[in-house]
Amino acid sequence: MTDADRAAAAIDQDRLWRRLMELAAIGATPKGGVNRQAFTRQDGEARRLMCRWADELGLETTTDAIGNLFLRRMGRNGFRDPIMTGSHLDSQPTGGKFDGAFGVLAALEAVEAMAAADVETAAPIDIVAWSNEEGGRFQPGVMGSAFFTGRISIADVADARDSAGTRLGDDLAKTLAATPGLGMRESELPAAYIEAHIEQGPILETKGLSIGAVTGVQGISQFTVEIAGEEAHAGTTPAANRRDALLAANDIIGALQDLTTDPDDLVRFTVGRMEVGPGSPNTVPAHVLFSIDLRHPDAATLEKLGGQIEAVCNEKARRCDVAVARDLYVPPIRFNSNLVGMVRDNAAALDLGSIDMISGAGHDAMYLASLCPTAMIFVPCEAGVSHNETENAKSQDLASGAAVLARTLVELANAE
Amino acid sequence: MTDADRAAAAIDQDRLWRRLMELAAIGATPKGGVNRQAFTRQDGEARRLMCRWADELGLETTTDAIGNLFLRRMGRNGFRDPIMTGSHLDSQPTGGKFDGAFGVLAALEAVEAMAAADVETAAPIDIVAWSNEEGGRFQPGVMGSAFFTGRISIADVADARDSAGTRLGDDLAKTLAATPGLGMRESELPAAYIEAHIEQGPILETKGLSIGAVTGVQGISQFTVEIAGEEAHAGTTPAANRRDALLAANDIIGALQDLTTDPDDLVRFTVGRMEVGPGSPNTVPAHVLFSIDLRHPDAATLEKLGGQIEAVCNEKARRCDVAVARDLYVPPIRFNSNLVGMVRDNAAALDLGSIDMISGAGHDAMYLASLCPTAMIFVPCEAGVSHNETENAKSQDLASGAAVLARTLVELANAE
Repeated sequence: MTDADRAAAAIDQDRLWRRLMELAAIGATPKGGVNRQAFTRQDGEARRLMCRWADELGLETTTDAIGNLFLRRMGRNGFRDPIMTGSHLDSQPTGGKFDGAFGVLAALEAVEAMAAADVETAAPIDIVAWSNEEGGRFQPGVMGSAFFTGRISIADVADARDSAGTRLGDDLAKTLAATPGLGMRESELPAAYIEAHIEQGPILETKGLSIGAVTGVQGISQFTVEIAGEEAHAGTTPAANRRDALLAANDIIGALQDLTTDPDDLVRFTVGRMEVGPGSPNTVPAHVLFSIDLRHPDAATLEKLGGQIEAVCNEKARRCDVAVARDLYVPPIRFNSNLVGMVRDNAAALDLGSIDMISGAGHDAMYLASLCPTAMIFVPCEAGVSHNETENAKSQDLASGAAVLARTLVELANAE
Repeated sequence: MTDADRAAAAIDQDRLWRRLMELAAIGATPKGGVNRQAFTRQDGEARRLMCRWADELGLETTTDAIGNLFLRRMGRNGFRDPIMTGSHLDSQPTGGKFDGAFGVLAALEAVEAMAAADVETAAPIDIVAWSNEEGGRFQPGVMGSAFFTGRISIADVADARDSAGTRLGDDLAKTLAATPGLGMRESELPAAYIEAHIEQGPILETKGLSIGAVTGVQGISQFTVEIAGEEAHAGTTPAANRRDALLAANDIIGALQDLTTDPDDLVRFTVGRMEVGPGSPNTVPAHVLFSIDLRHPDAATLEKLGGQIEAVCNEKARRCDVAVARDLYVPPIRFNSNLVGMVRDNAAALDLGSIDMISGAGHDAMYLASLCPTAMIFVPCEAGVSHNETENAKSQDLASGAAVLARTLVELANAE
């Protein structure tokens, strides 16, 4: 048996599940989901739990200015760049137990399995929990990996505010204070990055397969549209005299819906956040803010659709002022084919059925792909449901994903 | 000179304006408006100020279970039913200085003018500040007068919640506690009710007139629509698999907009409040709540349009569950023609130009009209703008309205 075989064989399905349930208790919702949004008290609590587990396993824990959390298992060779693996601990406001959490805890399980099997590696292995992947509370999402890969600075996002008006910078400081005494990670590029995640779609379950070897991520554009109309009395103001921001938003969203209707069902168009002010039934709304999330596997199509948004907004503005800001643009990403091949081969070595697939969801891996060879491992989730409190996955599938991860990590960390 | 003449002549334009500005400082907004919503700390503060002024004028102050505030100037005849006058102290979240406040302070000014002119009346005069007229924070509005006229009980509204989840009953108790020691008003019907208010429309200003003798109020229907869809991942869930509550709301509002489009511009259709949950850009919304405010001067048209809402909602539901609740229905109201005539005649007696007009806005007077002879006095406001922080009115017009009110109150309170 190789070291990679022995590490994979030492994966403990029950221990992984137990940790997932212990983590899911932080921010648990009555419906069985999780509300552990970025930079909340719950996020801080999850980080403290991770640090406790890291201490128990003798890992070296560091952080950085945006709160990304790194747990390092040392390698034999102090000069080798680390192999990085992980995902995120934050959730949607009504999220599930596995989205993000699985990737972090599968990495922890892989490292614990290496220790249990007395497997040393040449390169160190860094487990990472990226800050604010979801972007539900503070936009944009995939923030921690955007910072790590140099796309944004703290100054770019510190003044972002959540719906309650709380400033990101203030809650980031509180979150960092939740795990006091951590050193700051030194600047060091990973040699490779590999992220395990639930699929968040129905393909693996439908095909009865355990492992998705993820070849890339469809492109994402996110926008914020702000409409400024004029407050007026709902009873006295004739329709012709109104500048109704909500009716403008309604016309705009209707037109965008028409624009993005796609017989091939490849376009993903979502307005997930919408705020209306002042918010009184008797007053014509003067202010509407809404988000647009637009995705497509083809870069040209995604850019073309995104480029039409502003014109649609202006055409349907009903005499209101409309401002469109692009918060996020990530073109479709292709992962490293050697690494994708390793995932595919390691699934086969473990007698697990796998398929090559593209990710519909965005992940921190799409940013890491610009820094180092990157791939992802998908495991099935129930009915493909995610971003939902009923999100679910089978313990055995999760352990299979962790085993493929452990095998791949050992191979990468011991490669010449 | 009659007593009515002397009271009207004693109206002090500067004192009225000063009190309006002092009241407007409570909940003042940076843009020059007022945010003094019902049952907030600011509402309690406004009540304390009214009680202080009442004490200074020797008025007897009482309240009732919903927090309506009554300031009584005694009459000579202890057996006469009171003449009631007033309006409300609460504002829209981004409201103006005059909507409601003018009617309460014009009443106070009229009573102070009577005292200054040594005018006694046979019947007592009750100044009233109705609770939660605006209904911006807790629906439905015109709540205080609905309670006073027996339309609702405390139990009907105590569990209403504002957008932040605060319970009406809890904040009502705090508001009552803000003016401790008040007696409860004994059950006693007014002999007449007269309310002064800014027009909240452009007619008086356009015609260069000071006084509107209000003949009635157009009908109002208010509804809350709740849509339940299903949360799903914005990147992975195909359009065909979604139950998107926001797109359903968008289609419904678009269809209602078509339904209420009116070449005569008599229909008033407003969606003023809208909440979207969970509110994350990456998640398909599972929950939308929005308000509908529908008004028309003709009862049959109003009922016909209101009756079509539920069918439109169900037709456009996009596989979501839609629930429609009617929160408020007030048919078009006609005020007492004798009282309207008194307003018209008293304007003429004071050499003020007047016109008979219908109110586009709802007012507590529409409920009082079912209890006793009722009328309203309108004064111009700048550009017809209301429910807006820029709401404005001329000091002289306000004093003219108070003079017509003083004259009418003395005549009513001394009528045989």
